[in-house]
Amino acid sequence: MTQKLRVTVWGENVHDKKNETVAQIYPKGMHECIAEGLREDASLVVRTATLDQPEHGLTEAVLDQTDVLTWWGHCAHGKVDDAIVDRVQARVLQGMGLIVLHSGHYSKIFKRLLGTTCSLTWREAGEKERLWVCNPGHPIAQGIDRYFEIPNEEMYGEPFAIPNPDEVVFLSWFAGGEAFRSGATWKRGNGKIFYFRPGHETYPTYHQKEVRLVIRNAARWAAPEGSRWIDTCPNVPVEKAAEKIVAQGPTLHKAGEAGYR
Amino acid sequence: MTQKLRVTVWGENVHDKKNETVAQIYPKGMHECIAEGLREDASLVVRTATLDQPEHGLTEAVLDQTDVLTWWGHCAHGKVDDAIVDRVQARVLQGMGLIVLHSGHYSKIFKRLLGTTCSLTWREAGEKERLWVCNPGHPIAQGIDRYFEIPNEEMYGEPFAIPNPDEVVFLSWFAGGEAFRSGATWKRGNGKIFYFRPGHETYPTYHQKEVRLVIRNAARWAAPEGSRWIDTCPNVPVEKAAEKIVAQGPTLHKAGEAGYR
Amino acid sequence: MTQKLRVTVWGENVHDKKNETVAQIYPKGMHECIAEGLREDASLVVRTATLDQPEHGLTEAVLDQTDVLTWWGHCAHGKVDDAIVDRVQARVLQGMGLIVLHSGHYSKIFKRLLGTTCSLTWREAGEKERLWVCNPGHPIAQGIDRYFEIPNEEMYGEPFAIPNPDEVVFLSWFAGGEAFRSGATWKRGNGKIFYFRPGHETYPTYHQKEVRLVIRNAARWAAPEGSRWIDTCPNVPVEKAAEKIVAQGPTLHKAGEAGYR
Amino acid sequence: MTQKLRVTVWGENVHDKKNETVAQIYPKGMHECIAEGLREDASLVVRTATLDQPEHGLTEAVLDQTDVLTWWGHCAHGKVDDAIVDRVQARVLQGMGLIVLHSGHYSKIFKRLLGTTCSLTWREAGEKERLWVCNPGHPIAQGIDRYFEIPNEEMYGEPFAIPNPDEVVFLSWFAGGEAFRSGATWKRGNGKIFYFRPGHETYPTYHQKEVRLVIRNAARWAAPEGSRWIDTCPNVPVEKAAEKIVAQGPTLHKAGEAGYR
Repeated sequence: MTQKLRVTVWGENVHDKKNETVAQIYPKGMHECIAEGLREDASLVVRTATLDQPEHGLTEAVLDQTDVLTWWGHCAHGKVDDAIVDRVQARVLQGMGLIVLHSGHYSKIFKRLLGTTCSLTWREAGEKERLWVCNPGHPIAQGIDRYFEIPNEEMYGEPFAIPNPDEVVFLSWFAGGEAFRSGATWKRGNGKIFYFRPGHETYPTYHQKEVRLVIRNAARWAAPEGSRWIDTCPNVPVEKAAEKIVAQGPTLHKAGEAGYR
Repeated sequence: MTQKLRVTVWGENVHDKKNETVAQIYPKGMHECIAEGLREDASLVVRTATLDQPEHGLTEAVLDQTDVLTWWGHCAHGKVDDAIVDRVQARVLQGMGLIVLHSGHYSKIFKRLLGTTCSLTWREAGEKERLWVCNPGHPIAQGIDRYFEIPNEEMYGEPFAIPNPDEVVFLSWFAGGEAFRSGATWKRGNGKIFYFRPGHETYPTYHQKEVRLVIRNAARWAAPEGSRWIDTCPNVPVEKAAEKIVAQGPTLHKAGEAGYR
Repeated sequence: MTQKLRVTVWGENVHDKKNETVAQIYPKGMHECIAEGLREDASLVVRTATLDQPEHGLTEAVLDQTDVLTWWGHCAHGKVDDAIVDRVQARVLQGMGLIVLHSGHYSKIFKRLLGTTCSLTWREAGEKERLWVCNPGHPIAQGIDRYFEIPNEEMYGEPFAIPNPDEVVFLSWFAGGEAFRSGATWKRGNGKIFYFRPGHETYPTYHQKEVRLVIRNAARWAAPEGSRWIDTCPNVPVEKAAEKIVAQGPTLHKAGEAGYR
Repeated sequence: MTQKLRVTVWGENVHDKKNETVAQIYPKGMHECIAEGLREDASLVVRTATLDQPEHGLTEAVLDQTDVLTWWGHCAHGKVDDAIVDRVQARVLQGMGLIVLHSGHYSKIFKRLLGTTCSLTWREAGEKERLWVCNPGHPIAQGIDRYFEIPNEEMYGEPFAIPNPDEVVFLSWFAGGEAFRSGATWKRGNGKIFYFRPGHETYPTYHQKEVRLVIRNAARWAAPEGSRWIDTCPNVPVEKAAEKIVAQGPTLHKAGEAGYR
C-alpha cells in the first residue's frame, strides 16, 4: 500500500470574503476551490490553511505532516508573519514541495527562496491566455495537449525577475501581445518548487479542469523524495577527522564550541 | 580610455581589533589586507567599508559608485542591519558584482540572495588545503596552475547547503580528509556572485599571492555588464497593450492603480 | 501493484575476458557483478547486454522495454556502433534513465548527450578514495552516511570537462591529493542522467556494498516519469493556427511539405 | 589599445543563390547582410565563410583567428562535413563564442554541443513576431526597449527540444498564437553560445536594425574570456602526485601509457 500524499492548500482568504465578485466565484474561498480540484485525485489527502488562523494555519505540526504546500496570496503578503515564513522555508529545504500560484509571485516565501524581486508586468483586462507545453514528457504536463486556453485572465508579462529556472514547463501567450514563463521549476535544498501563473481572483480559473489537472500533476511531481535533511553546520573535531591530522596554528574557537551565525 | 573598476571591500572588523592573533596577522584589519591585494591591479579603484561605520559604510552613495563588493564577516553577521542588506541585495540585482569570502557563507546577504541555509561542516585545525581548478580557461582561474595550496586553513566540508551553482571553479582537498566546492558562481538579477572559501582570520591567508590573484580575477569577472535594471512591476494599461484588446470581465484594480506587494 | 522497474546493465566485457586480473575479480564479467548488485532490490528487473552481442544487445525491442540503462566501457568505446549510440540517445531523450559508470565518461553516448569532451586527469595507483555526500536528503545518497570509502581505486581528477551538472551528489577525496565531482546529474529531453565515478576494473569496486547501494538508488531515481515524448518538428499549417491569421509574403515550402534537416 | 574582436559569419549560401525570392532580398547572400550588420560596430573585424568554400571556409587558421562565429544554415545541414563540425566544436570548448541563427537550430554543430534533437514546431506564414526582453539589464538586450517587432517572420513554436538554457533573454509572441524561447544562452567548456530565433530567408529580417543590434550585442557578449584550454586527459604518475603515495594493487596501464578513448 502506497502512503497517500498530504497536501496543504494555503489561501490568503481576504478578497474571497471582502470582494463581492470574488465571493460569487469562490463562495467557500479560493483555497477550498483549489483543494476541491486536488481532491479529484483520491491518492491525495488535502487540507486547507488560511491567513486568519492561528499561526496562519501553518503550525509546526501541520507542516510536519505536509508533503506539498500550495500558496495563493495577493493583497496581504505583508501580513504573513516572518516567523511562519522562516518555518515554511525550513520545511521546503528539508524536502517539502511548494507550489506557488499566480500573485504568490510576490509572497514573502517565494521571494525568500529565490532571492530576487520576482517582479513582472501586469494588466487586468480579462484577456485570453494560451499556455504552451515546453516539454510534453514532463510529469506536470501530463494530460495537457500541445496547449490549453483560459478565456479570461489577468496578464503577466516579462521581465519576470526570477533566477533561471531548472526547467520551463509552460509558456503563456496573451491576446494583448505578451509572452511569459508561466510554469517554472526550481530545487532549493531538498525541496521542489513549481510556480504556476494562472489564477486571478476575479475569474473562475481554479474551476477550470486543465488548471486543476496541472496543479494535481504538480503536487505529485513535488512530492518529497529521499529523506528530510535537517542541517546544522556541525563542527568536526580534529580527533574525528577522516584522516589523522595534528592541529596546527592559532585557533579562535575552543574545542567543542559552536560556530558563529 | 577604459573606465576603472570600483571595488568596495567590506570587512566586519571585529576580531581584527579584539583578538590578538588576528590583530598580529592583520594589523590594519583584514579588509585593508584584502584591499591591498586588490590594489596590486592598477585598473581597480579600491575602497573599504566596515561594520562600525555609519550605515556600515555602505551608504546609497557608496553602493551607487561600487561596481564590485567583497564581503568578509564572521562573528557579527547578526549585527548587520537588515535595511543595509536590502540595499546591497537591490544593488546586486541591478548588476553590482558580489564576492563572498570564507565565513561570509553565513552572512545575511549571501543567505538572502541564495535562499538556502548555506551551512557546511568545519574544523579549525590549521590543516593544509589544496584548491583544484575545475575549468582552466575560466577568467577567475587565470594565472593559477592546476592547483595551489594554503599551508594552514580552517576546513570547510560538504554538505554545503547552496542552490546548485552556475559553475564550480575550484574544489578543495583537505589534509583531514574532506573535499569542498570552494569557488562557485551564481547570477541573481543582473549581478554576478562568486563565493571563495579561503580566509580564516587566524591564518595569513589574505597575504598569500594566489589568494590575492583569485580575488583580483574575480573582481574583474564580476564587473557589471549590460545596464542597471531597476524593476518596478509596472501595470500596462489596456490602451497601451501591444495588441488591441477590449477589457472584459470584472476587475479588482481601478485604472492606473499600483499592484499589491 | 506497482510495475517493476526494468534495468539493463550494459558492459563492454573485453578486459573481463582478456585480462587475468579483471577475470579473477569478475569471473562472470563486470556487467554480471553490477547486475547482481541491482538484483539485491527485488523491485528491479535486471538484464545485461554486452558489446559482442548483435546490436551490442541493445536492439529496439530491448531499449523499448528498458526504463534505466547503466553503461560501463573502457578500452572499446570506439567499437560501439554509431547507429546504436543514436538509438540509445533517442531513448534517453524520450525518458529512459542513464547511469554512466567510471570510464564510461569517455563513452560515445556520454559525450554525445553532454556535448563536451568529458576529459579528466587520472592515476592508476590503487589509492584510497573517500566519497562525500553533498546533499544528504538526495534520493541517490540514501543509506550512505556522511561519506564512504573505497580502499583501492583509480584516481580521477579535475578538470572534468562536463557542462555544469544540475546537481553534484558526491565529491571525492583521493589519498594522492585530488578532489573530483564523483556523482553528478543532468536532464536531457525527458531523460535523467547520473554519472558515478567509481569502478576501475582491476579493483573489486562493484562488489562493495555502498557502491551497489548508490547504483540501486540511482536506478530508482532515474526511472522515467511523465510520458515518452517522440519529437518530430511538425509543421503547423496556417489554417490550424490557434489564432486566425492570413498567410503573407513569399514562401519557401509548399503547403504540407516537411522541413529541412 | 583594445584588441578588436574577430567575428566570422558562416552562411550556407544555397537558397541565396538558387531561390529567386531570397536572392532579391539578399543579393550578396545572407552572410554578407549579417556581416554588414556586424560591421556597423567598428570594434568588430568581420569576415565571412560559406559551405561551398574549401573546408567550408573554416580552416584551422580561420578558426584559430576567430573569436566569435555566427552560424546560419537551413537546407544543407547534412552537407556540412563532420570533420569541420568536430573542429568548430573543439574551438567552442576552447572559448570561441557561437551565435546560432534561426534554422541553425537544426545544424550539426548546435545539436552536437547541446546533445538534444533541438526540434520545434513551425509555420511559414509571414506573420508578426514580437520579441520580449526577459532581462533588461542583459548585455545582449542593450538598446532594445521592452520589446521589438518583426513584421513578417516564420513561426517557431514550443516544444523546443533543448537542454535548459543558462538564461532566456528573449521570448517571442506570434500573431498565430504561439510563444517561444527566442534568445537563449548556454556555456559549453569555456565557450559561450547564444541562440537567436529570427531570420527566415524569405523575409528581410537581417536588414532590420533591432535584429542587427542584437547580433552585435551578442557578438560582444560571446567574446572569449579567460584563456584557451586545450584538454588532453593527462595521466598523473604516482611520483608526481600532490601527496606522497605508494602504488597499490594490480594495474592495467603500464607507466606512462596513455588512457583509452
